[in-house]
Amino acid sequence: MKTPKDYPAPSVPPAELLGALHWRYAVKRFDPDRKIGPEVWSAIEESLVLTPSSFGLQPWRFIVVTDAELKARLPAVSWGQQQPKDCSHLVVIATLRSMDSEYVDRFLQSVSETRKVPIDSLANYRKVILGFLQNSADRISEWATQQGYIALGQLMATAAYLGIDACPMEGIEPGKYDRLLGLEHGDYATRVACAMGYRHSADGYASNLKVRFPMDISIRRF
Amino acid sequence: MKTPKDYPAPSVPPAELLGALHWRYAVKRFDPDRKIGPEVWSAIEESLVLTPSSFGLQPWRFIVVTDAELKARLPAVSWGQQQPKDCSHLVVIATLRSMDSEYVDRFLQSVSETRKVPIDSLANYRKVILGFLQNSADRISEWATQQGYIALGQLMATAAYLGIDACPMEGIEPGKYDRLLGLEHGDYATRVACAMGYRHSADGYASNLKVRFPMDISIRRF
Repeated sequence: MKTPKDYPAPSVPPAELLGALHWRYAVKRFDPDRKIGPEVWSAIEESLVLTPSSFGLQPWRFIVVTDAELKARLPAVSWGQQQPKDCSHLVVIATLRSMDSEYVDRFLQSVSETRKVPIDSLANYRKVILGFLQNSADRISEWATQQGYIALGQLMATAAYLGIDACPMEGIEPGKYDRLLGLEHGDYATRVACAMGYRHSADGYASNLKVRFPMDISIRRF
Repeated sequence: MKTPKDYPAPSVPPAELLGALHWRYAVKRFDPDRKIGPEVWSAIEESLVLTPSSFGLQPWRFIVVTDAELKARLPAVSWGQQQPKDCSHLVVIATLRSMDSEYVDRFLQSVSETRKVPIDSLANYRKVILGFLQNSADRISEWATQQGYIALGQLMATAAYLGIDACPMEGIEPGKYDRLLGLEHGDYATRVACAMGYRHSADGYASNLKVRFPMDISIRRF
């Protein structure tokens, strides 16, 4: 098993990353005939699992939908948008509705096993996390959703660098997604989704100039 | 001006991106003597501005802190954490406290100017956004924060691919950051920060194995 220290420092050229961020856009129309290949898809899944989260708690499930029948039912619960049906892979980001000390202990157990350290050595870590839980009791669902949005941001950027198109989808009916995905009585709730695949050559949105406020408005320096 | 269609499809090798995500970790101790060079930093700023957001509304300001005196005051309002002081650049992500139709019109004005389309042609787009605003009146601040977390996710991933170290910082006192950054009477509030720079060679955290729940727990497929 390798630690971060064992990996060489990455050095993708800045111009290549910026080119990718200019290339990407929120795809309106996917090419239903083009599917993401297994090697690239497996890298995307691994990147999802590697998403950083607060305290390392990973309060999420990533639901990957490729089944044609299920996909065909999604536009009706996505404000009529066709991307969930026409894309190659739909990622639904579901995050914890609440969190209890049992969850924290399950997480610490995985820390203890991975790093081969006694669980007792994590007592202080546990105390800090439980303190956070207590202080944030009324906003754990909100916090978990925010962690899900870290995953969304990393997913969209990573997809772009790989040359995979995406469309983030906030315009969905989360409760109805929960029912379709069997989440409704579980610990995780649908928060947001991201359709992934390849743009249709006739998607006119690819020819729209990207709109951003000028850099000297969005960025302030001290 | 180029549109997304005018850029070549990116193709960073999957293994290179995954290597970078294994290389990254939440840096505990930055090397205070190593600064991010201007070319890379300018790419990071451009990547921030290019972050996708719901409806393209960009409800954020990115505050970049490099001033040594200001940085020295930040550990005291960051639960004692030293990263804001020792890092090269600290990015504070501030997002809208609320949003009114004036903001939406300013945004649509920028769409109209960039794409050289009459403002009237955006009437339907305006209606949809105002409908969203109305339906979400009690959670605009939460929504804007989520958009800020998209930026955080894209920022951490992009930094890793560039070989820049980072530490996401939720453990800060947002109200005190607001005061130090002059945000307290403005439209934007501090939500989260990200310290960026280079890991100190003595940061033991780089030698910890990364802990993740197994992929078949975090990912479900339909």
